[in-house]
Amino acid sequence: MLRVLTAGESHGKYLVGILEGLPAGIEIDEEFIRQYLKRRRGGYGRGRRMNFEADEFEIAGGVIKGKTTGAPFSVIIKNSGARDLEREPARTVPRPGHTDFAGALKYGFTDDFVPAIERSSARETAVRTAVLSVTVKFLKLLGIEVVGFSRAIGDVKVESVPDDPTVIIKDREHSIFYFPITGYDERAKALVDRMQEEGDTLGGIFEVRVFNIPPGLGSYVDPTRRLDARLAAVIMGLNAVKAVEIGEGIEVSKKPGSEVQDEFAHRGKRKSNFAGGLEGGVTNGETLIVRGYLKPISTLRKRKKSFDLVTLEEKLAPYIRSDTVVVPAASVIAETLVAYVIADAVLEKFGADNIDDIKNALKSYLKRIEKYF
Amino acid sequence: MLRVLTAGESHGKYLVGILEGLPAGIEIDEEFIRQYLKRRRGGYGRGRRMNFEADEFEIAGGVIKGKTTGAPFSVIIKNSGARDLEREPARTVPRPGHTDFAGALKYGFTDDFVPAIERSSARETAVRTAVLSVTVKFLKLLGIEVVGFSRAIGDVKVESVPDDPTVIIKDREHSIFYFPITGYDERAKALVDRMQEEGDTLGGIFEVRVFNIPPGLGSYVDPTRRLDARLAAVIMGLNAVKAVEIGEGIEVSKKPGSEVQDEFAHRGKRKSNFAGGLEGGVTNGETLIVRGYLKPISTLRKRKKSFDLVTLEEKLAPYIRSDTVVVPAASVIAETLVAYVIADAVLEKFGADNIDDIKNALKSYLKRIEKYF
Amino acid sequence: MLRVLTAGESHGKYLVGILEGLPAGIEIDEEFIRQYLKRRRGGYGRGRRMNFEADEFEIAGGVIKGKTTGAPFSVIIKNSGARDLEREPARTVPRPGHTDFAGALKYGFTDDFVPAIERSSARETAVRTAVLSVTVKFLKLLGIEVVGFSRAIGDVKVESVPDDPTVIIKDREHSIFYFPITGYDERAKALVDRMQEEGDTLGGIFEVRVFNIPPGLGSYVDPTRRLDARLAAVIMGLNAVKAVEIGEGIEVSKKPGSEVQDEFAHRGKRKSNFAGGLEGGVTNGETLIVRGYLKPISTLRKRKKSFDLVTLEEKLAPYIRSDTVVVPAASVIAETLVAYVIADAVLEKFGADNIDDIKNALKSYLKRIEKYF
Amino acid sequence: MLRVLTAGESHGKYLVGILEGLPAGIEIDEEFIRQYLKRRRGGYGRGRRMNFEADEFEIAGGVIKGKTTGAPFSVIIKNSGARDLEREPARTVPRPGHTDFAGALKYGFTDDFVPAIERSSARETAVRTAVLSVTVKFLKLLGIEVVGFSRAIGDVKVESVPDDPTVIIKDREHSIFYFPITGYDERAKALVDRMQEEGDTLGGIFEVRVFNIPPGLGSYVDPTRRLDARLAAVIMGLNAVKAVEIGEGIEVSKKPGSEVQDEFAHRGKRKSNFAGGLEGGVTNGETLIVRGYLKPISTLRKRKKSFDLVTLEEKLAPYIRSDTVVVPAASVIAETLVAYVIADAVLEKFGADNIDDIKNALKSYLKRIEKYF
Repeated sequence: MLRVLTAGESHGKYLVGILEGLPAGIEIDEEFIRQYLKRRRGGYGRGRRMNFEADEFEIAGGVIKGKTTGAPFSVIIKNSGARDLEREPARTVPRPGHTDFAGALKYGFTDDFVPAIERSSARETAVRTAVLSVTVKFLKLLGIEVVGFSRAIGDVKVESVPDDPTVIIKDREHSIFYFPITGYDERAKALVDRMQEEGDTLGGIFEVRVFNIPPGLGSYVDPTRRLDARLAAVIMGLNAVKAVEIGEGIEVSKKPGSEVQDEFAHRGKRKSNFAGGLEGGVTNGETLIVRGYLKPISTLRKRKKSFDLVTLEEKLAPYIRSDTVVVPAASVIAETLVAYVIADAVLEKFGADNIDDIKNALKSYLKRIEKYF
Repeated sequence: MLRVLTAGESHGKYLVGILEGLPAGIEIDEEFIRQYLKRRRGGYGRGRRMNFEADEFEIAGGVIKGKTTGAPFSVIIKNSGARDLEREPARTVPRPGHTDFAGALKYGFTDDFVPAIERSSARETAVRTAVLSVTVKFLKLLGIEVVGFSRAIGDVKVESVPDDPTVIIKDREHSIFYFPITGYDERAKALVDRMQEEGDTLGGIFEVRVFNIPPGLGSYVDPTRRLDARLAAVIMGLNAVKAVEIGEGIEVSKKPGSEVQDEFAHRGKRKSNFAGGLEGGVTNGETLIVRGYLKPISTLRKRKKSFDLVTLEEKLAPYIRSDTVVVPAASVIAETLVAYVIADAVLEKFGADNIDDIKNALKSYLKRIEKYF
Repeated sequence: MLRVLTAGESHGKYLVGILEGLPAGIEIDEEFIRQYLKRRRGGYGRGRRMNFEADEFEIAGGVIKGKTTGAPFSVIIKNSGARDLEREPARTVPRPGHTDFAGALKYGFTDDFVPAIERSSARETAVRTAVLSVTVKFLKLLGIEVVGFSRAIGDVKVESVPDDPTVIIKDREHSIFYFPITGYDERAKALVDRMQEEGDTLGGIFEVRVFNIPPGLGSYVDPTRRLDARLAAVIMGLNAVKAVEIGEGIEVSKKPGSEVQDEFAHRGKRKSNFAGGLEGGVTNGETLIVRGYLKPISTLRKRKKSFDLVTLEEKLAPYIRSDTVVVPAASVIAETLVAYVIADAVLEKFGADNIDDIKNALKSYLKRIEKYF
Repeated sequence: MLRVLTAGESHGKYLVGILEGLPAGIEIDEEFIRQYLKRRRGGYGRGRRMNFEADEFEIAGGVIKGKTTGAPFSVIIKNSGARDLEREPARTVPRPGHTDFAGALKYGFTDDFVPAIERSSARETAVRTAVLSVTVKFLKLLGIEVVGFSRAIGDVKVESVPDDPTVIIKDREHSIFYFPITGYDERAKALVDRMQEEGDTLGGIFEVRVFNIPPGLGSYVDPTRRLDARLAAVIMGLNAVKAVEIGEGIEVSKKPGSEVQDEFAHRGKRKSNFAGGLEGGVTNGETLIVRGYLKPISTLRKRKKSFDLVTLEEKLAPYIRSDTVVVPAASVIAETLVAYVIADAVLEKFGADNIDDIKNALKSYLKRIEKYF
């Protein structure tokens, strides 16, 4: 079983992450991690902080002579935007959409909710992405390809996604919004630019697809073992996500069953994939598809009504410089979150100690079931 | 921390559920549980099995002299539809949409996947509902009201929901689809009847609202503590659910931030509730709103293409008598699932041993924060 | 990962157990479970209740056509000693050594702690033993033999244990105290008889050995993964156990390191086993040895000083008919507890879905490391 | 629920620890942590490495303006003894008593088990102690005093321990072995010196007492909730510990029940404490007493027989410079481990968000039960 914890504040000196439970023998390439952090910082529509964030990191445990050892894998990021939090001015006027108010009530921060701002910030996802990126690498060694991308920026939505990871990755590299296909950047950029001018913000949709994923991951025997439930938890746990969808989950809720069944076309192979690769919470051999819906960034230049927790007077919510849209970044983080869940299910099914043993167990299994595909 | 396990097969002799971690002192009324089971069996569009299922249950632990004791709470249901599973004919032709195929591959049931059919069936939710219904009762004692209902049957969707639990419950009682408001039954019934005639099925949307829920439940400090993540896991873990939404999560992903902010209207009170009562994964004092999207029932009289796992020959998927739509039933189960998650968060925040201590802790807290509302 | 929950009160109608996470394909023999329950009821020194307890059980889930299915395995025991707990007279005078007082304070039972008595009773272990006995069977299918026995009754202690499971089991069958070797029954019986006459009670030591256990189970990378820590938790969690020992843990704490090292004799094989088969929390290929120390039964005919929780008056603790010594029974329960922990570690290392896959993975592993032994 | 993870290798650049689940509002004093690290490095009988280890640490998260925030608390230690592990020479001759062999088999390190040596080292406990020391502070704020000390060095055993934390702490400060009473240092020093000369090592016993601990922590309702089980897991999970004892667990296993009962002397108060403050896994208002038995340090100058994993030739186990006895250090670590478990149980019972709320809940509870003491 994989376990992950992170620590650190948005403007603290460090961000720290620990991922426990990785098997031994995964080759770790710092550049691989660096690319994830770079992609996470990027995407059109980010604020100026991104330019300053170099995300310098060090691996602090779990790797010797270039390979994971089975010991907890850890990354430390030195925060380039660190401030002296001991002198941070108190904050008492909550911003709607943020956890300022809810967090202040929960922990008793009603005379200064700086701690809620500092920890609830999406800055935490930098170190989470760094440690979890290793699970993407692990899956790659097993031939499983996890690919995240933006599906919609506001109401600019990619209608159809190529069913090939190589094509998606290539197009994604050329898109300033990490779209999986060309032809949408211009419209999205126009929209984002307009929002930025107006002091407004946007949300959107990201999607993660997992290609070549073996069938039989997850389980129907208990809801906590269902892969869809576990994916929903990590995706909904990501900042700003307010809905999660597997396959064409929203669309099929409106349609007759006969129109949205994934019939068997040839043996276990299907022609359609409305189910997004999951039946009964178990992977069925089709591409896994999961989607997250992001609300617009809550911090607006168009300031909103609020009040002071101490004086109880009406005030305008403070504006803290921010991004206009973060769907592209979220798609990168989500890629690692999905990989983390899949990796966990792989370790459950195929053993957890050593990459070679896992490869062998997977190979035997795939051989046994290949006749169905 | 609450823990729940269930056991039993769809046509086995028993269904068994255990809920561990309840505080002592909750008055348990068998009739309360019975009503949940009855509502779960009901709703227009169910198959004939429902008529036979009496769901006779016994409380097998955790209650003495009419109150919970802190010991594990357990319910045993005697399955009226039990069969001798030892003589159940082997099944080898998987139904698309079910976990027949995925489950067969996972556990090695390729010469007979009856075990996958038996456990993946939604019959399991009878006992889950029974044991979890007690968390609804627990919350009621704290003044927290959990109300589930159908939001859409296929594409017949309730546009707006009354913001009052008493109104919802009253209207729901009169609706054959458990709608929260009158005026939709007729259209939905016409649709379901047509589907039934055509041998087709439907999905839809259920919604659960939690009224009078205290702010400060859940946390932003780690994704696994976020209440939205925990809700997403249990809702997505329910059979046939393919998407989960908090508040107006899907709609807001398309809109500018300025249009979907829940401004503070008077102190901590808002006028809108796009966020569905959760900011940063923490309850903010507004009504909690969570929604599940169900795919249409996968078992159709319109039979679909499949194949035989043993002979590898092409076959039509078998038709096993089934329901046309189960959104109403799902709304009942979801009510208990949501209550379970909220109860868990309440125990974390206010202690876990005794209902009176919890009441006192909640009261002190509410008193301290009442000035913000 | 295996999970287990039980429910039910000592004199309630049912005891219920659920074990979640078993692989599919383990042949389940009711007689195997029955023998565990019978052995658990036995051993010299038990009170009269044992004669009445037939421990009639039914398997309530997880088995179809004689084999586990991967679904939760469940057993229901119908309590032959059931009483109408709704009419059970209130108890307010706590017995020292029992959790009457501590439990009353915890849950607020200060006007009647019957609920604490009912759940804290060792009666619960009947159903725990029943569900966990299946893990003994699972390990047997992999060639791993788990054997529990009494090591001491009071101060009558078996000095040396045969290093052969067949010999132990044979001698144990003939011992009224479940000793692993002949020659101690008479002395122990004389002691127990004297105690019984005097209205006194005894504790002792049980031991569990696991033969042919593969090296490499558990891990040193995190304390929660250490096999010794996991064994200590389940053994200390058993009623009346107050100390847990791995190998010769207590003796070696007094001796110089040079006298208690398990040198390598031939390649990975040792001549001694002070470490009890665990180094750094990982099995090392030697027999696993774990021991539990039981305090004497707390309920004595020799009544002890107590007081009334309501009136605060001094009173004598009530005598509730009980056993004189339960070490033999505890050794049976412990056998299943240890098997449960080992089985969990086996599933982690070798995968968790299907007995045949696990057998194959174990076989490959043993072949690879056989040169060291 | 508290969760803790650590990462880092014995000679790696960093050790990292994260403790998740602390309430907000605990004043954090770096000096408090520093004293724990200093005490852990000390005690007579340590090797030379201790002199070099300065254990320079930084708090990396969870503290703002001198108080915990509810966010994960993290400490980074910069290893003064760091080496370039990428160039560490391969090791293939396992030392008995260490996890070299078992770890090599588990993770497939049979051509170089440096990773097993690096992570299984007790060096890890430096950062664990640092993060967990905060739970000692937390309990102190509630009036609960956790005190660890050496009970025996080899066979030199303290016969009786003062029943007063102030006395213990004072005497402990003056003892080079962290004994809780004067008069044993000389004998223990003579023994350790002799062992050191002979190239031999020692184990011993440490003990932790928790004074003023409220009754009602832990629970009997499920074994995993029992406080004794949870204590046993963390104590047995500490390097070199091979046995765990609660109260006089080992002694009472040999005696008649009538001699070892903790009768109620005046209301809920007792005169004896054989039970070590726990009945049925729940604290009963008496001082909590838990003990760990350490085997002698496994690395000896007196070299033992081993073999080469690659060539399979017989070899002598390598000697890596080490300590002679570490019981004093273990007693410091154990103090924080016990505090961690108690803190977790306190959070469960009294809520988990804010130190003031917890103080109030505890106060109300103590007031309600004070008549029994």
